[in-house]
Formats: sequence, C-alpha cells, structure tokens
Amino acid sequence: MLAADIGGTNIRLAQIRDGLIVNEVRHQASFNQLGHFNSKQAELHILHVLQEAAETLLTEDTQGLGIGFPGFFIGNSGVLAASPNIPQLKNFALSKALSERLNIPVAAQNDALCAAVGEHSFGVGKGCTNLLHITLGTGIGGGLILNHQPYTGESGMAMEFGHLRVNSANDARLCGCGNHGCVEAYASAHAISTQYFEATGRQTSARHIYQAALNGDENAQTIFNHAGTYLGKAIAEAVKLLDIRHVSISGGLLGAWDILHPPMLQALNQHLIPPLQGKIIILPSTLDDNTGLLGAAKLLV
Amino acid sequence: MLAADIGGTNIRLAQIRDGLIVNEVRHQASFNQLGHFNSKQAELHILHVLQEAAETLLTEDTQGLGIGFPGFFIGNSGVLAASPNIPQLKNFALSKALSERLNIPVAAQNDALCAAVGEHSFGVGKGCTNLLHITLGTGIGGGLILNHQPYTGESGMAMEFGHLRVNSANDARLCGCGNHGCVEAYASAHAISTQYFEATGRQTSARHIYQAALNGDENAQTIFNHAGTYLGKAIAEAVKLLDIRHVSISGGLLGAWDILHPPMLQALNQHLIPPLQGKIIILPSTLDDNTGLLGAAKLLV
Repeated sequence: MLAADIGGTNIRLAQIRDGLIVNEVRHQASFNQLGHFNSKQAELHILHVLQEAAETLLTEDTQGLGIGFPGFFIGNSGVLAASPNIPQLKNFALSKALSERLNIPVAAQNDALCAAVGEHSFGVGKGCTNLLHITLGTGIGGGLILNHQPYTGESGMAMEFGHLRVNSANDARLCGCGNHGCVEAYASAHAISTQYFEATGRQTSARHIYQAALNGDENAQTIFNHAGTYLGKAIAEAVKLLDIRHVSISGGLLGAWDILHPPMLQALNQHLIPPLQGKIIILPSTLDDNTGLLGAAKLLV
Repeated sequence: MLAADIGGTNIRLAQIRDGLIVNEVRHQASFNQLGHFNSKQAELHILHVLQEAAETLLTEDTQGLGIGFPGFFIGNSGVLAASPNIPQLKNFALSKALSERLNIPVAAQNDALCAAVGEHSFGVGKGCTNLLHITLGTGIGGGLILNHQPYTGESGMAMEFGHLRVNSANDARLCGCGNHGCVEAYASAHAISTQYFEATGRQTSARHIYQAALNGDENAQTIFNHAGTYLGKAIAEAVKLLDIRHVSISGGLLGAWDILHPPMLQALNQHLIPPLQGKIIILPSTLDDNTGLLGAAKLLV
C-alpha cells in the first residue's frame, strides 16, 4: 500500500507494509502558495504533483494509495469539500480523479483524522474503543475514533480541536481562524514561537525555546506551562462532551512532552466533572512523525 | 408502552402509544433526600416506589417500561453506574431488578439522553442524522444522537453540556459541579434566579424574571441576554468538536425563547470556525415538557 502525507511545503510518500514504512520519498510541493491559480488550475496542479510523486514508488503490486490531506472531506467519499489553505478548492473529487490517473484505488481523508487512524491502528491508541487524537505541530488538529471507526462529522469538520476556546478574557490571543482565545493560539509550535518573541524580542523555534526552558529561561518555562495548561483545559471540554478515556498526541511538540504533560494533566483533572477526574489517560504517540502516514495507509484496508 | 420520567421530587408515569401520551399519572418521590439510606436501602426504596407507580398503569397488554433517570448508565445495559443526587448508588442494575418485580421488559437511560431520543423520534429533531439536544431547566443537560443512535460515551457521562466552560475569568461563577464558569452557572433557571437575586435582592422564579425582562427590567434583560450568549458559546464548542448541524432545546426555560434565541445564535456564529458559520440550526422543542417521557418510551422499541 502507498501512503501520502500532504503538507503545505512538502509531500511524504511511502510504501507501507504491515504498519511499517518500507520505502519513503519526499517531494517538494507548494500547495500553500496556489493563490494565483483558479479552481480548475489548482485541482490540475495538485493532481499533477501527486501523480508524479506517486509514480516514483508505484509498482505492479501496488494495491492502492491513501492520502492524508489538510482539508475537510465529505464522509469517506474522498471528495474534498474545502481546504483552509487552498480556498479556491470546492468539492474537489480528489480520490476519484487521482485514481483515474494512477489506475489504482485512491482514498483521501483529513490529515489529522489519518493521524487518529494511525495511532488507533498501530500506536498507543491500539485497541481503544474510542480515541481522541491531537496533532500538536505548527498548528493543532484533532481526530476522533468512535467505536473503532473514524468520525468525520456531517461535513468533515469534526474535531476542530485547535479552535476550542480556552480563554474568554478580553485580551485573549487572536487565532488564525479569526476568533480569540483558541487553544491553537497558545499551544501550537507557531504560537509558542510568537509568544516567546513577544516576551523577549528573540525569534526562534519551539525546539530552541524548549531547550531554553530546560536551561532555566523563565519566559520559556511560563509559555510551555501555559501551553500545557490550555491543552489540558481543551481536552477537558472534549471529554465532558464525549466521555472518552484515551487521548493520544502526536506532532513536533512531543519533544517537549516532559514539560507539557504535567500542567496538561493537572488542568484536565481540575476542569472535569468529579466522576471523570483521574480517569483520563493522555499518551504521547509512539510512531514518531509517521502517525498520519501510517493512518493514510489504512484508509483502503 | 409505559414510560417514566424521574425527577428529584416527583415521578411522571404515562402510557404512550405512537408517540402520544394516552394516560398519565404523577407520583410523589423524594429521590433527592435519601441521604439517610445506605446503598442497599436506597436501591430497595427506589425499586419499591417505581414498582408501585408502574403498577397504577400496568395492564395485561403492557409491553414494557422505559425510564429516564438522572444518572449515568453503562451503555444500554440499564445499569446505573452513578447518580449525582444519590451518591450511595453504584452499579445499580435498575432495569433488571425492576423487570423482575414487574414481569415486563424494563429499560433505563439518562434523562437528558431520553429527551434527545424523544426529540429525535417525535419532535423537531425528527429525521436528523445527528442531533445535539439540550435540556434547559433547573439545571442544564445534554444528549447526543449520532447516526440516528443515542450516544452514551464510555461510562454514560457523554454530553455533560451544562458543564462546558464558557467563562475563564477569575471571577467566573461557581457551578454545582465544583468548577467555575460552566454554562449551567449562567443559563439554567436556577442560575437566572440566583443572578437576579444578587442584582436586585428579590428572590423569584425564572418565569417571573422573564416577565420582568419583557416589562423593561434591565437587570432581568441583562441576565437573559448573558444566558443566551453563554448558551451560544457552549453550543459553538460542541459544534467545533462534533460538526453537527441540528441543535434542539427543551425544558422550562423555553418560555423565554424569544429573548434567549437571538443572543444565542449571534454568539454561536461568532465563535464557530468560518466554514460552519450560519450553518447551524437551533430549534425549540415542539413536545412541551414531554420530550424525556416520549424518549423513554422509545428505549425498548
């Protein structure tokens, strides 16, 4: 099975066998810079880039291609209803069009939901009846498994976890979605860099800010502490609605797990109703950064 | 089919045929005042009261009894895991024990989830694939229908809608659950009375405060406006997680729908992600106060 994980600037493509990556290639893409294309041009460009990428690993034995794509898909149809970064796309039948070009079955689904499927199939969420999976990287996404099945919502927009509102104050931070106080505005890698720049005037990566926190930088420590706290508060809201016991987290910020997890767990339990306190398990992914790729490979199984 | 709706102070029992109440009786109960009983005594007392009540309407043709009960049930087992108002009850096999006494099939489920089932089967939620139902009375509850089926969560605690956190400020109101800033602390009938008392020194019912609002009482208007706004904010959080389109509301506060709904809808749309704005329909129940009773009758169908 082939699997593709689509980002704004690159495409990871891999052959997957039994939940293991046996061959992987990376391709440049510029899917976040298609503003000069109209809808049809954007569709054709994306199909062309994905076809070229897929053909580098395509063999006679290839059974199909699963794609994790940043956007909202209609159920399991493979039709992309919309993609926040490529606004000209509307109801784009990505799976069908690519399948006709490659002559193999193609399935496509939201990237964070693919990550949830990957974690549920091969990672720390294996065997869980229900699983809330959070992707904690440049942005924050979420995917939900209910009764062992991916949950898409009515229009593929379920689990917009990054946009749960965790701060209702007047001075709450502005989020990319246009609202204020979303958890993504505090706890994504981008938000951590931004907050650190505001506090210190130094522009650096979340990874370096994590190192600074370990070395005693109080600004860095405060930012990570708040990030963990806000993540815990957001998880509490999801748990109060869904009554699920297992939460898994993947993404680039997992490197800071040791300083994110304690405030996260404390805030979670503080904000749950009493009978749920102490019952929720939050686990870091064991699949490195392959969660979404492995999940995409499961879409056609 | 018999159906029972259990409150803290009374029991409504009815014969239901084709979604209509054909005969109804009310019985006194004191299920919120069983503190002097141990676990076994409380179970026996509840069974005794429910048996006596049911027998007043039981006939040879009775096919079964469905019960809406304020507590957390394990899936569709009819086992009450816990009930906030009767803390000594733990894993009480209510359905089975009552079925043995009455010699008819008995099913029991969370009262707010019964209301969701009732609204989905007979009310404004009829035909909706997914439905978030909110019970807006003395307290605030929630029930969720996913893919036409009631969703219980892992331990019957799903849709604790009243305890979604809508105010994160330090001076956010204390809720009965022990947390601060829950929507129930602002928008339940009890919270409306409490806030009006704090503002004016007058102790009166939500119904009278609604009349006062209509008559130009600014305190009353502000409290209802905030209640509607906070309800809209809480619905936004649920929609961002679940991507559902239909929300229904039942309960005693529906009488104030005309002043609750406008700020509710405005706050909802303000706090959604852009592609969901304007897409969510919030409808008042058309089943008077029978939503839960009619839903309980569906538990065995």
